Amino acid sequence: MTRFDTYFLMKPDDVAEYAKTQLDVFAPDADLEGAEIGDGNINFIFRVRDRKTGQSVIVKQAGPTARISDAFVLSTDRARIEAEILMLEAKLAPGLVPVVHKYDPVMSCCVMEDLSDHEIMRAALLKHQVFPRFAEDITTFMVNTLLLTTDVVLDHQEKKRLSGRYINPELCEITEDLVYTEPFNDYKGRNDVFGPNKAWVEANLYGDATLRLEAAKLKFDFLTNGQALIHGDLHTGSIFITTESTKVIDPEFAFYGPMGYDIGNVIANLIFAWANGDATLPAGAERVAYLGWVERTIVEVVDLFNQKFLAAWAANARDVFTREPGFDRWYLDTVLRDTAGVCGLELCRRTVGLAHVKDLTSIADADARVRAERICLTAAKDYIKNRESYKTGAEFLAGMKRAVGAHNA
Amino acid sequence: MTRFDTYFLMKPDDVAEYAKTQLDVFAPDADLEGAEIGDGNINFIFRVRDRKTGQSVIVKQAGPTARISDAFVLSTDRARIEAEILMLEAKLAPGLVPVVHKYDPVMSCCVMEDLSDHEIMRAALLKHQVFPRFAEDITTFMVNTLLLTTDVVLDHQEKKRLSGRYINPELCEITEDLVYTEPFNDYKGRNDVFGPNKAWVEANLYGDATLRLEAAKLKFDFLTNGQALIHGDLHTGSIFITTESTKVIDPEFAFYGPMGYDIGNVIANLIFAWANGDATLPAGAERVAYLGWVERTIVEVVDLFNQKFLAAWAANARDVFTREPGFDRWYLDTVLRDTAGVCGLELCRRTVGLAHVKDLTSIADADARVRAERICLTAAKDYIKNRESYKTGAEFLAGMKRAVGAHNA
Repeated sequence: MTRFDTYFLMKPDDVAEYAKTQLDVFAPDADLEGAEIGDGNINFIFRVRDRKTGQSVIVKQAGPTARISDAFVLSTDRARIEAEILMLEAKLAPGLVPVVHKYDPVMSCCVMEDLSDHEIMRAALLKHQVFPRFAEDITTFMVNTLLLTTDVVLDHQEKKRLSGRYINPELCEITEDLVYTEPFNDYKGRNDVFGPNKAWVEANLYGDATLRLEAAKLKFDFLTNGQALIHGDLHTGSIFITTESTKVIDPEFAFYGPMGYDIGNVIANLIFAWANGDATLPAGAERVAYLGWVERTIVEVVDLFNQKFLAAWAANARDVFTREPGFDRWYLDTVLRDTAGVCGLELCRRTVGLAHVKDLTSIADADARVRAERICLTAAKDYIKNRESYKTGAEFLAGMKRAVGAHNA
Repeated sequence: MTRFDTYFLMKPDDVAEYAKTQLDVFAPDADLEGAEIGDGNINFIFRVRDRKTGQSVIVKQAGPTARISDAFVLSTDRARIEAEILMLEAKLAPGLVPVVHKYDPVMSCCVMEDLSDHEIMRAALLKHQVFPRFAEDITTFMVNTLLLTTDVVLDHQEKKRLSGRYINPELCEITEDLVYTEPFNDYKGRNDVFGPNKAWVEANLYGDATLRLEAAKLKFDFLTNGQALIHGDLHTGSIFITTESTKVIDPEFAFYGPMGYDIGNVIANLIFAWANGDATLPAGAERVAYLGWVERTIVEVVDLFNQKFLAAWAANARDVFTREPGFDRWYLDTVLRDTAGVCGLELCRRTVGLAHVKDLTSIADADARVRAERICLTAAKDYIKNRESYKTGAEFLAGMKRAVGAHNA
């Protein structure tokens, strides 16, 4: 018996003792120190480090409520989901997720590789750093984790059993409310709209009946479309990055949902990065280089996804019907339609909803922020309403550029 | 300890002893006799009767393989699914399913109300009996069991947990193969095509690339669309009927799937009933009355479903987006599209697939059977390919009538 045989919420010293007594990662004479390093919305993140060698691991513990607010009561089952999904993703997309050392179902914690040499991508983008490998890595991650967990590739019975392991009611409900509903009607009164944009948002989001209807359709797709084992929260804050390496973290929102949810999130967060650069970078070479890289990356994410998706289909598809001429392209088109729709939802919810992005909130100049937000929301409306027409990287980029043009002085 | 503490496949005498010792339905001095009465494809069905009073119950036991063929290995979990679903359906659609007395997880059997005063609807239709209450009853059953188990009405977390209880991999796979795949390519070589129709079927089903592609799309909808807790096998052989009463049985295929699957099955099996009457009834009043009743019933099933669906939506819908103007009609249109598609699939698979219907196989005259089958298959192709255009009862009936017209001498 140890005191880790019963669940409690750990403090840094507890985590150091946990690592000493419950893991076989460190040397017996290691001099361990623990520290809380996370500031995320949901969980508690600690680093345990051996003062002698510098060796370290991350311990991520799930509390009984979300870290950001006790109002979100969450099953600690999400720690199991996260650990299992990370291990599955490591098989499907080797090298693109952190290594998991241990999952502890009693303490609801997951011990994993410390990626301190990486940086959270959103933070790096706020410094306008560029990552030439990103489009290549993230499209490999998405095609491999998404297409390879669908009925296109998996035995259908195996896929059903897998979907049963990752039913994720509480975390899905957060997405259903915050992403799919509240941005369009503020029905819980939790939206957080930048003052100078309040009237614009009321008129152009809450007041747009067509937009609300399309959001409703997308919501019911998210509620019912058990297509692939999606990450469920694939924004730039869930990605650790260097110029040589991309690691996707935090899959606790994973469940069987529409794969466009992940791809749309990636594109929307690239658009936020562009909007920040556009609003804050002065004219000059850095601005040209950064915005150019973001634009190329948006195009490449879509086009490389399409290309790798069709190649992976050809190589891996197993259901007999997947060989029907035209079925792969038809299926991919439905994914791209969902991608455009979700890209629009994410652009809305991170601009007007409960959980913002620093890409927008850190724009100090009020007029520049107003314009950046309206660019994002204008593009969003088009992605949602005309989602059937977005199929190539150039088309996604053109959607953003039209919104930019609409808000030029 | 009794010998019923360990699973074994019961014989009639075992069932009588089981009823005597394991149920509290019969009087202590009851004189019970058991008899196997079922000839279904999947399970073993017994009646236990008290010789003194005539009181009786049905005992339905699940074997480790399908009764029709040891090739289908099936989890006996289907007995749990059936019993639980019957109890849930009894709450949602009172009076329209048999009463469950007991579910025994060890013996994988379900003890339920004996409906011997009812007749299996397919058998009654083969005698060209009419059932004026049927459209009313079956549409109430479908609207209540389907719409009331969707995200439109249920709390989304509750719905996800319910969907996890009824993941049904083995029985779904039977449907995926027999309904959604094999009729269009015979890829397992199990199809059973009426000799004189072999060349026609090869040319018009297997040889139709557009049809195969549309079947592929429908199959992937069935694999991924967790819309409602569907019955999953709602043909006229799963309905006990009298002129005053309708009881839906055999929900062991239940899972969270597209609700059009149930509605399409009902309509397709009414079309089989029509095709049988058309092929076998001589000109005269009985023919006019019977075919007229079937035609009216096809129209009423669709139109009453639509009407009750919208009324039940207005009365029960809970998600905030369900009040968006036009969303109910848009949602219903997607259900009708799926209904037409599945109606076509069922018409194909029961004509050319492994499991036939007596409505067609009992047509003694070969030419008449050839024509009846081609009517069903021609209508089927239109329902599948043009499924977006079927929205009213009149349109569904017109689809069948066009196929009849195409095969008039």
